[in-house]
Amino acid sequence: MINQSFSSKLLDNAVNEFSKLPGIGRKTALRLVLHILKQDEADVRLFGNAIIDLRTNVKYCKNCHNISDIDICNICSDTKRDKSIVCVVESVKDVIAVENTQQYRGVYHVLGGIISPMDGVGPADLNIETLERKVATGEVSEIIFALSTTMEGDTTNFYLFKKLGKYNVNITTLSRGVSIGDELEYIDELTLGRSLLNRVQYSQ
Amino acid sequence: MINQSFSSKLLDNAVNEFSKLPGIGRKTALRLVLHILKQDEADVRLFGNAIIDLRTNVKYCKNCHNISDIDICNICSDTKRDKSIVCVVESVKDVIAVENTQQYRGVYHVLGGIISPMDGVGPADLNIETLERKVATGEVSEIIFALSTTMEGDTTNFYLFKKLGKYNVNITTLSRGVSIGDELEYIDELTLGRSLLNRVQYSQ
Repeated sequence: MINQSFSSKLLDNAVNEFSKLPGIGRKTALRLVLHILKQDEADVRLFGNAIIDLRTNVKYCKNCHNISDIDICNICSDTKRDKSIVCVVESVKDVIAVENTQQYRGVYHVLGGIISPMDGVGPADLNIETLERKVATGEVSEIIFALSTTMEGDTTNFYLFKKLGKYNVNITTLSRGVSIGDELEYIDELTLGRSLLNRVQYSQ
Repeated sequence: MINQSFSSKLLDNAVNEFSKLPGIGRKTALRLVLHILKQDEADVRLFGNAIIDLRTNVKYCKNCHNISDIDICNICSDTKRDKSIVCVVESVKDVIAVENTQQYRGVYHVLGGIISPMDGVGPADLNIETLERKVATGEVSEIIFALSTTMEGDTTNFYLFKKLGKYNVNITTLSRGVSIGDELEYIDELTLGRSLLNRVQYSQ
């Protein structure tokens, strides 16, 4: 609808850049850019520089590959956290998701993706070597697989299991079953079937 | 849900800045920022600078107050456009909307808002003086009011009508009626009633 260029090259440019973001079309981009135009110049400078700064100065924890401003992230360097339990996740987003549950006091290992031949992602593209080295030290007692419950997630789980099985480490995965708040009639058969098979003792 | 800070101040900062945009919550902001993290550093620099450049170097046409990179915008300086017809709109967004119809060959006058006592916007805050000066030259034969069909839009129309009525200029407004594609049963009574009163000759 608004594919033609505007009366200003600067406006054009900003709208084009914004519409490269996922889920932002040209109409939303224009709305956002016109909003930015109304802000103070200093505020807009802060906004633009926050983005550039992040990309330029971003660091990843040398231990768990989580995003961090310093060499070792604040989860890995937290003395209150149990270093013998390692939760394996796909991305930084998943670290945040697990942290939000406030139920986990171990540490993480961010793979940086999952094995997906369709997207050309193989084991060599992921942070698997550092995970194996961590396990090989013998300081890890439990590895929790917390990957997506997709074909790719299952493939990655299987690959990691083959790789880490030879070490003396307990390998667990997130329990799968009925989500809290789900109505029974809307649950897919696979999940419902599996949650029947893996039923647990009722407790109050 | 994700109100606590992340493991990185830089990430925190970027997410905070993004979530200041209208319609962007913290969850979407995080998604956008993590997308940006995966882009080339040079591309991210282009993105950040496009925003800062726009805000720093933005100019408004001295004639019609439309956004422009030069003193007189390319609509006002286009010799093919009829300078005697002036379409009065609220904002730059509306110029783009009318331009998109490809039905208009006159020029514009951007008020920069509408009279809204609730928001503390009075006639003095708008580009009304320059409009009156333009009309006073006698070079304008028609003024088209193309403001929102809201209370504020109607108030502004009325104010402008009082201000410009003394000059020898034809004042028109956008026709109001049933939108193309509307089903009759869902149209509000006011619009339907008015479109009945202002019915036009049927033509093929």
